[in-house]
Amino acid sequence: MSDAKRRLVVLDPAPASAGPDRSAEIDDDHFHDQCGVFGVFDHPEAANMTYLGLHALQHRGQESAGIVTTDGEKLYAHRAMGLVQDSFNQEQLGHLPGRIAIGHVRYSTAGGSHIKNAQPIAVDYARGSLAVCHNGNLTNAEDIRAELEARGSIFQSGTDTEVFVHLVAASKEIAIEDRIADALTKVKGAYSLLFMTEEAVIAVRDPMGIRPLCLGILSSKRDAHVVASEPCAFDLIGAEYVRDVEPGEMIVIDATGMRSMRPLPPAPPRMCVFEYVYFARPDSKLGGRSVYDTRKALGRALAKEHPVECDVVVPVPDSGVPAAIGYAAARNVPFEMGLMRSHYVGRTFIEPQESIRHFGVRLKLSPVEPVLRGKRVVVIDDSIVRGTTSRKIVKMVRDAGAREVHLRISSPPTQWPCYYGIDTPTRRELIASSHSVEEITRYVTADSLGYLSLDGMIDTLGGGSSFCHACFSGQYAIPFTAANRRQMRLVGV
Amino acid sequence: MSDAKRRLVVLDPAPASAGPDRSAEIDDDHFHDQCGVFGVFDHPEAANMTYLGLHALQHRGQESAGIVTTDGEKLYAHRAMGLVQDSFNQEQLGHLPGRIAIGHVRYSTAGGSHIKNAQPIAVDYARGSLAVCHNGNLTNAEDIRAELEARGSIFQSGTDTEVFVHLVAASKEIAIEDRIADALTKVKGAYSLLFMTEEAVIAVRDPMGIRPLCLGILSSKRDAHVVASEPCAFDLIGAEYVRDVEPGEMIVIDATGMRSMRPLPPAPPRMCVFEYVYFARPDSKLGGRSVYDTRKALGRALAKEHPVECDVVVPVPDSGVPAAIGYAAARNVPFEMGLMRSHYVGRTFIEPQESIRHFGVRLKLSPVEPVLRGKRVVVIDDSIVRGTTSRKIVKMVRDAGAREVHLRISSPPTQWPCYYGIDTPTRRELIASSHSVEEITRYVTADSLGYLSLDGMIDTLGGGSSFCHACFSGQYAIPFTAANRRQMRLVGV
Amino acid sequence: MSDAKRRLVVLDPAPASAGPDRSAEIDDDHFHDQCGVFGVFDHPEAANMTYLGLHALQHRGQESAGIVTTDGEKLYAHRAMGLVQDSFNQEQLGHLPGRIAIGHVRYSTAGGSHIKNAQPIAVDYARGSLAVCHNGNLTNAEDIRAELEARGSIFQSGTDTEVFVHLVAASKEIAIEDRIADALTKVKGAYSLLFMTEEAVIAVRDPMGIRPLCLGILSSKRDAHVVASEPCAFDLIGAEYVRDVEPGEMIVIDATGMRSMRPLPPAPPRMCVFEYVYFARPDSKLGGRSVYDTRKALGRALAKEHPVECDVVVPVPDSGVPAAIGYAAARNVPFEMGLMRSHYVGRTFIEPQESIRHFGVRLKLSPVEPVLRGKRVVVIDDSIVRGTTSRKIVKMVRDAGAREVHLRISSPPTQWPCYYGIDTPTRRELIASSHSVEEITRYVTADSLGYLSLDGMIDTLGGGSSFCHACFSGQYAIPFTAANRRQMRLVGV
Amino acid sequence: MSDAKRRLVVLDPAPASAGPDRSAEIDDDHFHDQCGVFGVFDHPEAANMTYLGLHALQHRGQESAGIVTTDGEKLYAHRAMGLVQDSFNQEQLGHLPGRIAIGHVRYSTAGGSHIKNAQPIAVDYARGSLAVCHNGNLTNAEDIRAELEARGSIFQSGTDTEVFVHLVAASKEIAIEDRIADALTKVKGAYSLLFMTEEAVIAVRDPMGIRPLCLGILSSKRDAHVVASEPCAFDLIGAEYVRDVEPGEMIVIDATGMRSMRPLPPAPPRMCVFEYVYFARPDSKLGGRSVYDTRKALGRALAKEHPVECDVVVPVPDSGVPAAIGYAAARNVPFEMGLMRSHYVGRTFIEPQESIRHFGVRLKLSPVEPVLRGKRVVVIDDSIVRGTTSRKIVKMVRDAGAREVHLRISSPPTQWPCYYGIDTPTRRELIASSHSVEEITRYVTADSLGYLSLDGMIDTLGGGSSFCHACFSGQYAIPFTAANRRQMRLVGV
Repeated sequence: MSDAKRRLVVLDPAPASAGPDRSAEIDDDHFHDQCGVFGVFDHPEAANMTYLGLHALQHRGQESAGIVTTDGEKLYAHRAMGLVQDSFNQEQLGHLPGRIAIGHVRYSTAGGSHIKNAQPIAVDYARGSLAVCHNGNLTNAEDIRAELEARGSIFQSGTDTEVFVHLVAASKEIAIEDRIADALTKVKGAYSLLFMTEEAVIAVRDPMGIRPLCLGILSSKRDAHVVASEPCAFDLIGAEYVRDVEPGEMIVIDATGMRSMRPLPPAPPRMCVFEYVYFARPDSKLGGRSVYDTRKALGRALAKEHPVECDVVVPVPDSGVPAAIGYAAARNVPFEMGLMRSHYVGRTFIEPQESIRHFGVRLKLSPVEPVLRGKRVVVIDDSIVRGTTSRKIVKMVRDAGAREVHLRISSPPTQWPCYYGIDTPTRRELIASSHSVEEITRYVTADSLGYLSLDGMIDTLGGGSSFCHACFSGQYAIPFTAANRRQMRLVGV
Repeated sequence: MSDAKRRLVVLDPAPASAGPDRSAEIDDDHFHDQCGVFGVFDHPEAANMTYLGLHALQHRGQESAGIVTTDGEKLYAHRAMGLVQDSFNQEQLGHLPGRIAIGHVRYSTAGGSHIKNAQPIAVDYARGSLAVCHNGNLTNAEDIRAELEARGSIFQSGTDTEVFVHLVAASKEIAIEDRIADALTKVKGAYSLLFMTEEAVIAVRDPMGIRPLCLGILSSKRDAHVVASEPCAFDLIGAEYVRDVEPGEMIVIDATGMRSMRPLPPAPPRMCVFEYVYFARPDSKLGGRSVYDTRKALGRALAKEHPVECDVVVPVPDSGVPAAIGYAAARNVPFEMGLMRSHYVGRTFIEPQESIRHFGVRLKLSPVEPVLRGKRVVVIDDSIVRGTTSRKIVKMVRDAGAREVHLRISSPPTQWPCYYGIDTPTRRELIASSHSVEEITRYVTADSLGYLSLDGMIDTLGGGSSFCHACFSGQYAIPFTAANRRQMRLVGV
Repeated sequence: MSDAKRRLVVLDPAPASAGPDRSAEIDDDHFHDQCGVFGVFDHPEAANMTYLGLHALQHRGQESAGIVTTDGEKLYAHRAMGLVQDSFNQEQLGHLPGRIAIGHVRYSTAGGSHIKNAQPIAVDYARGSLAVCHNGNLTNAEDIRAELEARGSIFQSGTDTEVFVHLVAASKEIAIEDRIADALTKVKGAYSLLFMTEEAVIAVRDPMGIRPLCLGILSSKRDAHVVASEPCAFDLIGAEYVRDVEPGEMIVIDATGMRSMRPLPPAPPRMCVFEYVYFARPDSKLGGRSVYDTRKALGRALAKEHPVECDVVVPVPDSGVPAAIGYAAARNVPFEMGLMRSHYVGRTFIEPQESIRHFGVRLKLSPVEPVLRGKRVVVIDDSIVRGTTSRKIVKMVRDAGAREVHLRISSPPTQWPCYYGIDTPTRRELIASSHSVEEITRYVTADSLGYLSLDGMIDTLGGGSSFCHACFSGQYAIPFTAANRRQMRLVGV
Repeated sequence: MSDAKRRLVVLDPAPASAGPDRSAEIDDDHFHDQCGVFGVFDHPEAANMTYLGLHALQHRGQESAGIVTTDGEKLYAHRAMGLVQDSFNQEQLGHLPGRIAIGHVRYSTAGGSHIKNAQPIAVDYARGSLAVCHNGNLTNAEDIRAELEARGSIFQSGTDTEVFVHLVAASKEIAIEDRIADALTKVKGAYSLLFMTEEAVIAVRDPMGIRPLCLGILSSKRDAHVVASEPCAFDLIGAEYVRDVEPGEMIVIDATGMRSMRPLPPAPPRMCVFEYVYFARPDSKLGGRSVYDTRKALGRALAKEHPVECDVVVPVPDSGVPAAIGYAAARNVPFEMGLMRSHYVGRTFIEPQESIRHFGVRLKLSPVEPVLRGKRVVVIDDSIVRGTTSRKIVKMVRDAGAREVHLRISSPPTQWPCYYGIDTPTRRELIASSHSVEEITRYVTADSLGYLSLDGMIDTLGGGSSFCHACFSGQYAIPFTAANRRQMRLVGV
């Protein structure tokens, strides 16, 4: 939903020490996932487990974190700005009783970084209490909101997610799963959702399965069900991955057990391909596919498409590491950690007045000169967004003595914004939307540049129809409404 | 509304340093006002003026503070736990643009002290944005809430105030004043309200005028209208007091000027008498009556009803000072500040493990021994709630050498809880509801005890029918519903 | 010691929320005491008692607070910027073990408000550990420091107090009391000192007894000795005042009991008269004299010297209250609290851009208009420093409707800076040093102005030779050194 | 110096958000470097450059950070607990004027983590002001301290470093370099020091050059000299590495330029070998040797000494990466990032009550299961201290499906504590001091375990006599005093 239409600006304070820190991104020229969700049903330490699950999903959103629990009587909510570890302490977790919990980490677009927008949302309505958290983005939120307001609803946040609770509250159905199903028939877009009532956790994935969501079991005296955006959240707490929630599936977990429902008409699955390229953690499996192995395979395919005579293959850490290992192996060239990533980036720093070469990127990455000096270096990254960071990296590698710098990207040129829950710049900011590979090569000052082709990526992944690759191809999985088009013009597509 | 019926417990964090500090009340055995409101229309520094107005109303609520402003396009909200001076800094006020603002300070009952309940509430609805703040208490909030939920509404806080915005949003009327008038026909109870839209401030006082609300003018290049719970808020910012908002009056202030409306059927006015006894600041005038002078007059009446041979009259500072001056003058006995109030009470302290005599009250009050030693002392206080503090004060005065200690109270025995916006204990905690004056005298260990009579108080104020004195008389201004009675049993009336 | 000679500027941080807040002083035109000290020997809750004692001495210094305890083996120190209640929490007090403690509150001059200067100072030296805290000011600190540095000593703070520990460490004597006595022979100036070793507390008052210091007993299973700047610190913890430490007396309290020593040649006592006028708490007794009663007597003397036809006598609260009661009684005119003091001043506030009449003083004081309107008002204050606040008060009282405003000051004109531990402005900032009473009357816009005469003050106190009244008379108790004179020129005497 | 002999425990508060966070170390079973130093002479942004230099040296100490600058007149100091980025903000850096600065990051042993111990130390003494910071440890600090105290010196911290300033202040020499040289003749131990006066920066490295220190040039309008523990600090600010400060060299940098002095008798150089193994950043060069290349070479040597049939070589990131690359290359086996390091470790987390397998290490490291499942895995780490983490890693790798787990360590068994500036456990906590390789293999549950031999390490580094390898060999570079032996017994060697 367009922020331009939101009239309400809520500035309720973030805790002093927290608040979104964008400093790390000054030279982190990447797309950003907007959310991670986690839920647990029937565990004696539901809040603690959710805290840890969110910690493992921290890479999916660093701006706010929230947990809602229930003891079967009431819902208990705590939300705060900042990282999970800064948002909760032992005492606060102690105020979240019960065996059922859902939680959320969020990375939001500019203007939306306020506690009021933190999730999960929790409300009282006629049938009791309801909490919800959401990874994704609705394309018709503005229309639904207008309809709801016309009927007398009031909105207290700027998030799409508030739409869901209004729709569920307004449904004429009786059972909660029917109310949710009813609500879902009205929305369009990408969503992996966790609902919670005093008695149940309900997980839903949109019909195309654009954003990930998976199921697990946490063994204890009684087995507890867990749901998470990525299975890496299960690993930390010792839970077992069971399967992905399927596109269009609704899973109800309550005292009677777990049941699967299909409230929505089937659609061809269109999992977000960028989850494999960059978003997901390498130790996760999504759709039965190892993220690490997939990235290595993309690196091998890249080596086949864009070989080059070279002495060393160097990743841009950490995301470029598996693809670089794959590329180096395919080319039989040494893999080296020629760029070191700092552990201490991520919070405010002081910029000197006098300009320092490559300063922004140097705070995050340092060249290991003996690896690079006199060498023909292949640098592997997962994507190029604006090109500014790539340019700094290429220059820094060359300054460290590299004889040649060949940049290789383990995905196709990113040319189109995402409307399904990813924070991307507008089209005109995406360098590949208006520049040829040759022009980009010159801009980043590389000796050569090679992107993996769309076909190469799809072949590697084994089947193009089952992915959303709109950011590469412009083939959007969900048809645009007129309102969407208006809005897109506003935001500069 | 009964907290027992609220299902949603929101723990969103207060800023580290703030949060309600009840330590000062350990021996502050008083009723507490629950709110103060302030609004300004058409001033270049609307947020700053509201900040200062709230500062002057700080005695009406120390738990949270909030301001909402509008620049005519959007509403901007900032709310935080704690005192006004801790809740806002220059930067935060700078994020609240526009020439229109309303603000709120709040003292809430236990369990309700969360940021989510902070006011003003601000929402988007079909006709635009709306903010509201409220001093008072609805007696039929629970019923209205149930009706609204039955129609699909969701509730995100535990306050009565959210009911107003739902009712306004749901109204079929077009103009905002008609929507508000429509909403007011549905509510019962005590309310002094400030609404704000992108274009107007609307002030409303309930038909009986239970809680105060007054109008002023702040002269600048253009005159700005100001509204506040008490005129002391005008004094700080250099505004002129114009008049009280009348019971049942709705005042709309917008670009066309100020107009008065009477949307509700008239009722006999019933201003809260306790505002004169304790809540309001002595430098305020309410209903055209000086609070300071009224308190002095109550002291004189008390002297007439309960004279005693004595050497010195000593107030319990600060609230007892004017009544003590009145009492001393009427008896022609020296007035002395025989109890000193600390400037530094009000935040956490460390209680020693070993018991210290009168410790709690000593942190706040110190006896000035040469004033008391060997004297027959009259101690003047405004009220006795539980009696625990009075007992400590009497003992402390006697320990400092007083020969006799006579306690005089400048209001009648407080026997009944308030349901109109005041934080009072349950009946059984009110010592006067179950003990005779003789028994209380023994409990507080005074040589004698005299309360001003109800008639004496009413005569002093000049007319009983125009006040609510339910806390003294049990004559509640608003008839109880069956739900109220149920709820009252729950909370121990 | 002159800050101009200090080369070391230490900026170690104050805790975020604390730090000296001078906002309250914008219109608090008073001299300020610089310190309060408290010590306890042989109490199971030594740290807690010291915390409470410092809380009761908070009026003597609001900038930093510190406690050092010993368990007989080691010394444990905690110091922080800010009020006592902000500087310590239960956990921090828990880290201060032992039955012996000393503590300090500090109000420092500009430039010196850093944690490094917080007291008590605690060090290791050849004979063990030593802590010290100090109320007062040395006049030859600079000379001693130069001598010590010439011998190889290093200085880590900007306080006079560090000089004491160096001198004690450098002494050739064996016993700690002898080392301290040895050190004291070298220093000139005003000092009330508490030393602490692993085994003893040693209290010292300078030969003229310029700053107060008194002894008490805290009864428990075993009686504990307590020492404090004022006896009000004993009252809070339930200790009994025993007597003042005498000028030039050194009291050693250790496992063998308490013994009094006289290490220094006797000098005529010169207790600071301003302690009675303003610094000390009204419930304290100093030199056997009640502060409250003394202030009332000053008010009576003032009435005799400067009577005026009037309708009401109004104090500038809180310090002017006893003198106003005395004045009103002597003149047989009603005493009224015509100026109300806010409970919520003391921390940051936002100043509006548009000027508000009397804004600064209004934040702290509000006129009670019905007390003042149409009246001939006598306003009683304890002193005038720069005159700026008096001017605002007089104007505010007149704006509230007073027919006449007569300002009466219960002490003589303050014309001279203090060099003995009080924060005073330079001579040229003291309005009375360069203006006649007539000129000051015009400046403050009063209808008349009357100061108590020096003789009147001395007579009231019963004997001029036993007080230091240099700030009024320029008769400094301690002869100046050449260095002092140089320094005084620097700082604008 | 033994903490057991320190009598003074200073608890001055760390800023709320900071303080040492040891949570990350729960499973970070490594030796820890204790300090990093940085200095700059004659740069317009001296404080900013020092801030950045310390940021780049953050891996050498995370507990406190401090900067002292001078404008030629005074010294300005700011120190705080926590990371560099948390300890300074723009405003605080703005209070540090001048073109000369030195700074320090510190990791201290338990008990010493207080602001009072933060460096640089800055003092006033007879000749002016002096600041100093220190990387290393003195072995005769206790003796010197006793001597200094006997002469009347007082000590305000528990650090060795305070000894230096006392010695310099006590020297009879005139020129600062002579005073420092004089002081150095008295101390024994490891030290890389930066002194600063109002006019100069003086860098000193102990005669054996145990801790690193290097020189650089920062080109600007005027070239500025820079000094740092590692050259990676130069890279971030765009400075050029010039050369290492030589063992026993004193370099004076002042307005007349830079001059090298040799105030101490020469000794055989004994650079700490562990800097290469683990402490230093891989992109640093020390003693002309690339840390990254050295680690890779150690991996290759390890492969030669302890080959094993395997399918994959996996490092324990990040420190094990270069050695693993070397090992994998030497064995011609694929290198894979089979263990993923979390970016979000480093602050507090909540431990669940129910035990989770490998929980502590999982927070930091996650297995990438497809890399490990069914494979014979070689895991490369740089050292084993207590063995607890190694055991968890081996089990976690096996749980992820590894068929065999072979642990290879790129240094010899660590059997001896360090007394030269490294935080090591006592002997009895070092698993290798009391267990054979076979026993350790069983304890960590590996299929095999191989340590690089001492000879192998020395050969790789090219010459044993020029290194201190006491932690491996027990051959301490500096003879022990009797006091050292006593102290060592105390601390459990």
